[in-house]
Amino acid sequence: MYHMETMRWVGGCLEILDQTLLPGKTEYIRCEHYTTVCEAIRRLSVRGAPAIGAAAAYGLALGAVALRPAGRAEFITAVEQIARDLSATRPTAVNLQWAVDRVLGALRDKKSSNIDILKKTLLTEAHAIYREDLESNRLIGEFGEKLIPQSAAILTHCNAGALATAGIGTALGVIRTAHQAGKSIHVYADETRPLLQGARLTTWELIQDKIPVTLLTDNMAGYLMACGKVDLVIVGADRIAANGDVANKIGTYSVAVLAKEHGLPFYVAAPISTIDLSIAGGQEITIENRDEREVTHFAGQQVAPVGVKVWNPAFDVTPNRLVTAIITDRGVARLPYMETLSVVAGKKHGVC
Amino acid sequence: MYHMETMRWVGGCLEILDQTLLPGKTEYIRCEHYTTVCEAIRRLSVRGAPAIGAAAAYGLALGAVALRPAGRAEFITAVEQIARDLSATRPTAVNLQWAVDRVLGALRDKKSSNIDILKKTLLTEAHAIYREDLESNRLIGEFGEKLIPQSAAILTHCNAGALATAGIGTALGVIRTAHQAGKSIHVYADETRPLLQGARLTTWELIQDKIPVTLLTDNMAGYLMACGKVDLVIVGADRIAANGDVANKIGTYSVAVLAKEHGLPFYVAAPISTIDLSIAGGQEITIENRDEREVTHFAGQQVAPVGVKVWNPAFDVTPNRLVTAIITDRGVARLPYMETLSVVAGKKHGVC
Repeated sequence: MYHMETMRWVGGCLEILDQTLLPGKTEYIRCEHYTTVCEAIRRLSVRGAPAIGAAAAYGLALGAVALRPAGRAEFITAVEQIARDLSATRPTAVNLQWAVDRVLGALRDKKSSNIDILKKTLLTEAHAIYREDLESNRLIGEFGEKLIPQSAAILTHCNAGALATAGIGTALGVIRTAHQAGKSIHVYADETRPLLQGARLTTWELIQDKIPVTLLTDNMAGYLMACGKVDLVIVGADRIAANGDVANKIGTYSVAVLAKEHGLPFYVAAPISTIDLSIAGGQEITIENRDEREVTHFAGQQVAPVGVKVWNPAFDVTPNRLVTAIITDRGVARLPYMETLSVVAGKKHGVC
Repeated sequence: MYHMETMRWVGGCLEILDQTLLPGKTEYIRCEHYTTVCEAIRRLSVRGAPAIGAAAAYGLALGAVALRPAGRAEFITAVEQIARDLSATRPTAVNLQWAVDRVLGALRDKKSSNIDILKKTLLTEAHAIYREDLESNRLIGEFGEKLIPQSAAILTHCNAGALATAGIGTALGVIRTAHQAGKSIHVYADETRPLLQGARLTTWELIQDKIPVTLLTDNMAGYLMACGKVDLVIVGADRIAANGDVANKIGTYSVAVLAKEHGLPFYVAAPISTIDLSIAGGQEITIENRDEREVTHFAGQQVAPVGVKVWNPAFDVTPNRLVTAIITDRGVARLPYMETLSVVAGKKHGVC
């Protein structure tokens, strides 16, 4: 079973697996300062909504360790500045803001004036977020597995696996759980341009777990379905609005439209922390635009003509009507999401 | 105006622009033997249905030059063998077989026993195919231009441009003609994995012609449409069945489904030589599967894990119901294609 850690807290530092080097190299970035965590998030050394949430939580604890404040109020103000720096690294995945807010909340709730105790509180909360994500993955897997037929060819997009989380993953967590349950699973992995998280990360994880996987380019997904080779689609999410609109890696929307055209279930797997009930619909989600070089260059080599204009949104929004079900760590929600998501988000366990 | 020649007959040899090196380098492959032409087609140094048709025609003429037969019958038998080698290079684009058959037909029709005259007949026919494709592009442009609004954002997939033909291109021929007519055109070019014909070739051609172009990855096309940034789609074709089903570069089908979802016209531009009336529907079209390394490697560098299984079809089939119109060099055909295509293919000029 796959057991590479996406991040680890070692000797008072955060070590982050540098996913930009995978699958060729497995190297950890040692973060002794929170700005190194910011940079790791920004350049996608750590990516995936739950993983960047946990990394940001640790980043906050790490940044606090270095502070030498005069008192509690000054400490909190300084931690809040670090929180803003971490939150600003990437705009779309809500888990980042959620994790930072949660750690800040734990700090404010701790009434002590002892700075060492306050620093410890931050780290304890970061550890809790990490541990809970691990358990959350397990629960998503259990709820989701029930939706997978005894024999299934499953298309996935990007990487919603162990590398995107603390545990077995969200979409890949469901796949792993189904595989573990003895079901006959074959995964089709979209390579996921521009940064190839499907080709580099999803296939790598699944090969290690001996789950059969076939790689294809993103533009082959429609023809794959037309050939009758897919039974269902399952992907992760970066932010889910109250109405069930789903922001996820660019290309997810196209896959959802294709699934509808072919009458295939389209499932989204994500922890409750990815649901943003403060946002009514997908149109309110900020979509990150990234550097043109991600599209025009490859491993430092220019492939497109010099000076070509590029459109490079990192995410898109899939409207709720295309989402068959949202698999969370507290149960499975279905349309109308405006009702079911708030129920799921409000309770401890169960299936809608 | 763009004027790079896709191929040229110089000093008794065929010179083929090596498109695998574009846009970084512009180098011609000098073909002194027909097997070099076969190899150039196989490795996509020359690609695009009309262009490989013309290249194969010249390849046949080139192969014939080297023959030293005892007589007419022996000559024809040897040329037929060369024709089989050329036809076998790629299975999907019908223009290849069409061009080879046409040159063979001209040879058989020539009743002379003078081998030099027969050899000359082959070259004359190859030149005619090349010249006619040039004129065909112009006509496609004229017919298609009428379908383009005064101001239009146009999505295209792969490269159906000058580099795919002898002239101004098919899909890009329509775009060029509309631009020349003073219309306000903005092109969105899918990069077209795995071999990036959109990123490398389409953007390169359009930049030279000063036609505004924006590059995107294939998986962004759906979101681009959802953002209201596209007015219509226009692509080329490798083979069109009698019922209007269209085989074209992998990913075309996904774009067609997305166009339908967003209520956008989906146009196919191709010469009559791309229409294969001998085939009733798309299910009869042979789809070429290509080397896994096209997906797993990039510029010689491995990006996916060693040993991963890959699906790499080079084409897909778009069913006729998704095709708004087929723009040919003899007019524009619309549903029901089973009736309109045979009319268009049978006449000299006009619009259905």
